[in-house]
Amino acid sequence: MTDKITALDLAPAELSDATKAYFAKCREKLGLVPNVLLAYAFDEKKLRAFTDMYNDLMLGESGLSKLEREMIAVAVSSVNHCYYCLVAHGAAVRQLSGDPALGEMMVMNFRAAELSDRQRAMLEFAVKLTEQPAKIVEADREALRQVGFSDRDIWDVASTAAFFNMSNRLASAIDMRPNDEYHAMAR
Amino acid sequence: MTDKITALDLAPAELSDATKAYFAKCREKLGLVPNVLLAYAFDEKKLRAFTDMYNDLMLGESGLSKLEREMIAVAVSSVNHCYYCLVAHGAAVRQLSGDPALGEMMVMNFRAAELSDRQRAMLEFAVKLTEQPAKIVEADREALRQVGFSDRDIWDVASTAAFFNMSNRLASAIDMRPNDEYHAMAR
Amino acid sequence: MTDKITALDLAPAELSDATKAYFAKCREKLGLVPNVLLAYAFDEKKLRAFTDMYNDLMLGESGLSKLEREMIAVAVSSVNHCYYCLVAHGAAVRQLSGDPALGEMMVMNFRAAELSDRQRAMLEFAVKLTEQPAKIVEADREALRQVGFSDRDIWDVASTAAFFNMSNRLASAIDMRPNDEYHAMAR
Amino acid sequence: MTDKITALDLAPAELSDATKAYFAKCREKLGLVPNVLLAYAFDEKKLRAFTDMYNDLMLGESGLSKLEREMIAVAVSSVNHCYYCLVAHGAAVRQLSGDPALGEMMVMNFRAAELSDRQRAMLEFAVKLTEQPAKIVEADREALRQVGFSDRDIWDVASTAAFFNMSNRLASAIDMRPNDEYHAMAR
Amino acid sequence: MTDKITALDLAPAELSDATKAYFAKCREKLGLVPNVLLAYAFDEKKLRAFTDMYNDLMLGESGLSKLEREMIAVAVSSVNHCYYCLVAHGAAVRQLSGDPALGEMMVMNFRAAELSDRQRAMLEFAVKLTEQPAKIVEADREALRQVGFSDRDIWDVASTAAFFNMSNRLASAIDMRPNDEYHAMAR
Amino acid sequence: MTDKITALDLAPAELSDATKAYFAKCREKLGLVPNVLLAYAFDEKKLRAFTDMYNDLMLGESGLSKLEREMIAVAVSSVNHCYYCLVAHGAAVRQLSGDPALGEMMVMNFRAAELSDRQRAMLEFAVKLTEQPAKIVEADREALRQVGFSDRDIWDVASTAAFFNMSNRLASAIDMRPNDEYHAMAR
Repeated sequence: MTDKITALDLAPAELSDATKAYFAKCREKLGLVPNVLLAYAFDEKKLRAFTDMYNDLMLGESGLSKLEREMIAVAVSSVNHCYYCLVAHGAAVRQLSGDPALGEMMVMNFRAAELSDRQRAMLEFAVKLTEQPAKIVEADREALRQVGFSDRDIWDVASTAAFFNMSNRLASAIDMRPNDEYHAMAR
Repeated sequence: MTDKITALDLAPAELSDATKAYFAKCREKLGLVPNVLLAYAFDEKKLRAFTDMYNDLMLGESGLSKLEREMIAVAVSSVNHCYYCLVAHGAAVRQLSGDPALGEMMVMNFRAAELSDRQRAMLEFAVKLTEQPAKIVEADREALRQVGFSDRDIWDVASTAAFFNMSNRLASAIDMRPNDEYHAMAR
Repeated sequence: MTDKITALDLAPAELSDATKAYFAKCREKLGLVPNVLLAYAFDEKKLRAFTDMYNDLMLGESGLSKLEREMIAVAVSSVNHCYYCLVAHGAAVRQLSGDPALGEMMVMNFRAAELSDRQRAMLEFAVKLTEQPAKIVEADREALRQVGFSDRDIWDVASTAAFFNMSNRLASAIDMRPNDEYHAMAR
Repeated sequence: MTDKITALDLAPAELSDATKAYFAKCREKLGLVPNVLLAYAFDEKKLRAFTDMYNDLMLGESGLSKLEREMIAVAVSSVNHCYYCLVAHGAAVRQLSGDPALGEMMVMNFRAAELSDRQRAMLEFAVKLTEQPAKIVEADREALRQVGFSDRDIWDVASTAAFFNMSNRLASAIDMRPNDEYHAMAR
Repeated sequence: MTDKITALDLAPAELSDATKAYFAKCREKLGLVPNVLLAYAFDEKKLRAFTDMYNDLMLGESGLSKLEREMIAVAVSSVNHCYYCLVAHGAAVRQLSGDPALGEMMVMNFRAAELSDRQRAMLEFAVKLTEQPAKIVEADREALRQVGFSDRDIWDVASTAAFFNMSNRLASAIDMRPNDEYHAMAR
Repeated sequence: MTDKITALDLAPAELSDATKAYFAKCREKLGLVPNVLLAYAFDEKKLRAFTDMYNDLMLGESGLSKLEREMIAVAVSSVNHCYYCLVAHGAAVRQLSGDPALGEMMVMNFRAAELSDRQRAMLEFAVKLTEQPAKIVEADREALRQVGFSDRDIWDVASTAAFFNMSNRLASAIDMRPNDEYHAMAR
């Protein structure tokens, strides 16, 4: 296996100081620069648009915990069989939950996990939205409200699931390779 | 039908001057503020992340024409049966091409259109990425290169198709309603 | 695009006086001879069998309104992504309902429309029959009875949905092209 | 099991002399009146439209043999798991071919049969048209021409496959029951 | 058609006396040696592992009758369109039930049969396990308990359905041909 | 999470000395008794039939390496999203290959791995057999022969893929839980 991060041959851009600083911060906090960022780095405008959306979605204010957002990320990526996202976000579920088996369940089949009604409903919605987006109806939103989600929370469930349907497809389209470090994390 | 833009009850935010100016510019250039922007406006940070990504993707520099990017948007939305995106981006295809029938073909079945080899390959890739993202392999990328797409172009085909797989799902999840004005445009 | 009505090269038949009169009546009432009739006209026996069945089904006595039958036609054609039928019958829904948006909803995703329980049940049945005919069971028929359909009405829901599953497939098989006039009708 | 022919309770019509004569002819030639005709008999107009189309399609002039048309009928009905059509037309394949195993293969999986290139291409087209009508493209028609089908023949392959996609769905929608006599025929 | 039992060219093994005796017993009791046994006979270890599992499952102690186990076998094989298993086990359903139509219903569409709640639930479980194994949840097992199945019975429903998902795939993979004798049995 | 190995309440059998010895050998060689064996242990006859088939298939003589057989096991289980088999056999791929990333690729999407033509063809066959068993035709077997597999090898590819289609379904049907030890193995 080569060291290529994607299957595409894209001319690398000269990184701005801001981007260099951002990558340095990644290395400090995560121990690595996620390859998805390096993949986007050929065009800083695209990189920033991606990180702005990602950071707001996964790290910003929300009625969903960070772990719950990562669980959605992985359950969606499992349906789409996205290697990059399953490796990177599977590691995040293991880390945030401190439960290696939970990470594996999200990767393999979220239905194998013993979840609260809230979390099960959240993942059922995310997976239906992934598999059959055209069939989401009011009853599906109502099922989330029944287990305690506010309309504001439903936005976050929906936009997280939607985001990974994008991210999975970009990663699959260009054969994006995850950083090796993820594999051993939080086992 | 009520005037609700989505099925969610989200407390509207006070719009900043920058957002007000942006919406004014939309009204001036498009004759309307697309409802997707109003839907995001409950949180300006989310609104800006969305518009930054969208504008770069659909209006920025690319080896794909704006029409081609809109064709991808609609062909993907057709697979996902997304009412909002088909209405809004179907109108865009009609306008940019000056060919109402082409807009309808993208909405209904892109295979009904007489396309160049380049455009057919582009849409076949976008639709396969939508339907079976896990089955994209090097041969699929190679098929795009064979009809003249550069690796940089492949990024744009992939990221446009991926973006609408996100956008379709957010719109379906919250029952986003398109502006009425789109229906009659460029018929 | 050529003027061909289908992808097949079929020797045209000499039209009988009866057929000429029928086509003249189409021109008078609809402003055009639907291309599907011209496509069948290579064999008058097939043409007559088709029009007899079609006219009885879509224009004959029924507990379903003509609009409801056209809504079934379009919702079924949407599942099957049939360009010909979506163009021709989408126009019919717009005309009969006087609601251009309703026509678009049937084309794109009937679930986006605010429908009565009766009409929603009718379209859910038609779409299930289209997607998974083998899984129709008594409970599906009972759901129609619950919203007020008689057994005689169920026959009409079923046979209309069934008919367009035929018509969609013939049109797709031979790349039947709709008359251009439909696109601008009743917008 | 009751003697009901369908799950619907439809008021029987007084049969006209013409219909009585037609049924008498069925009894004479087939040894039975196919239940599908009795199901339609509540409305003679619908009955005639159905029999006109059916008889032209299955018994009329064609470049396809009657056996080939029945093979299409059964292969399509196998995809759709239509009990009525598989029983009735499976019997027809056994009778016309004199090969009970061929009838069973069409019912179960046409790919198990050792077929000529012509017949295999014919059934592959019919099955693709059944499963994925929106994905039929010129290459599919060309594949039929390559094995010797004329454009006129392609119409017949397409319209036979299309017809049984209708007939399967009507039968499934109303739980149409085949005549018992079919089961033992031509075993 | 040749006399080959499968599409593979496997060197036949010298049969042991035990295997010869077993085949003789088959001939005596069934009137034939099922071709699946001949297909496995190239390796007696594989043959014995298969027959041990099969005989325990289909003929051993169980809360399910032999007919019920054969009904599961055929309903599963119908989903998988396995020619070998549908022929061989369809015959078994006809024989054990004395009802030729029941055998045909299992082959074609088990939903066409008038079944007890118990048997319908059993087949619904078997078919869901075949089509969407990852979506089986506690509610599916509970539905079996509701109609009277013990947990021990659920094991048998599950393992019978699972076994034929294996057997169907081996048969399809190697084009295994059923014995001709099955076709006429118990008609 | 409880200590239950499956969702079924099955009366445990008294273990024979042979079974006790077998389990002791498992503990010695693997460091654990795989839960699948404990799940079957309520009935020693079923346990033995399972282990006889499994051991011959996965450990016996074959033109496929043990790693290749485990790769098939995991690629098939990935399609079926079987938690038990992905955990247990994913660990086996990591151990046998000494390559943790390869194990993850088989679990997530085998197409992400850089494989030899032989191994890619093997897994494509196994996955097609899993997803669409009815569509396997001679060309699929021929593709295996083209990359060097003998007919005897094809039997092993087919029967391994088929076996895990059984095993995945039994495990999913009864919610079989893998031993915790697998998660950390060979990371």
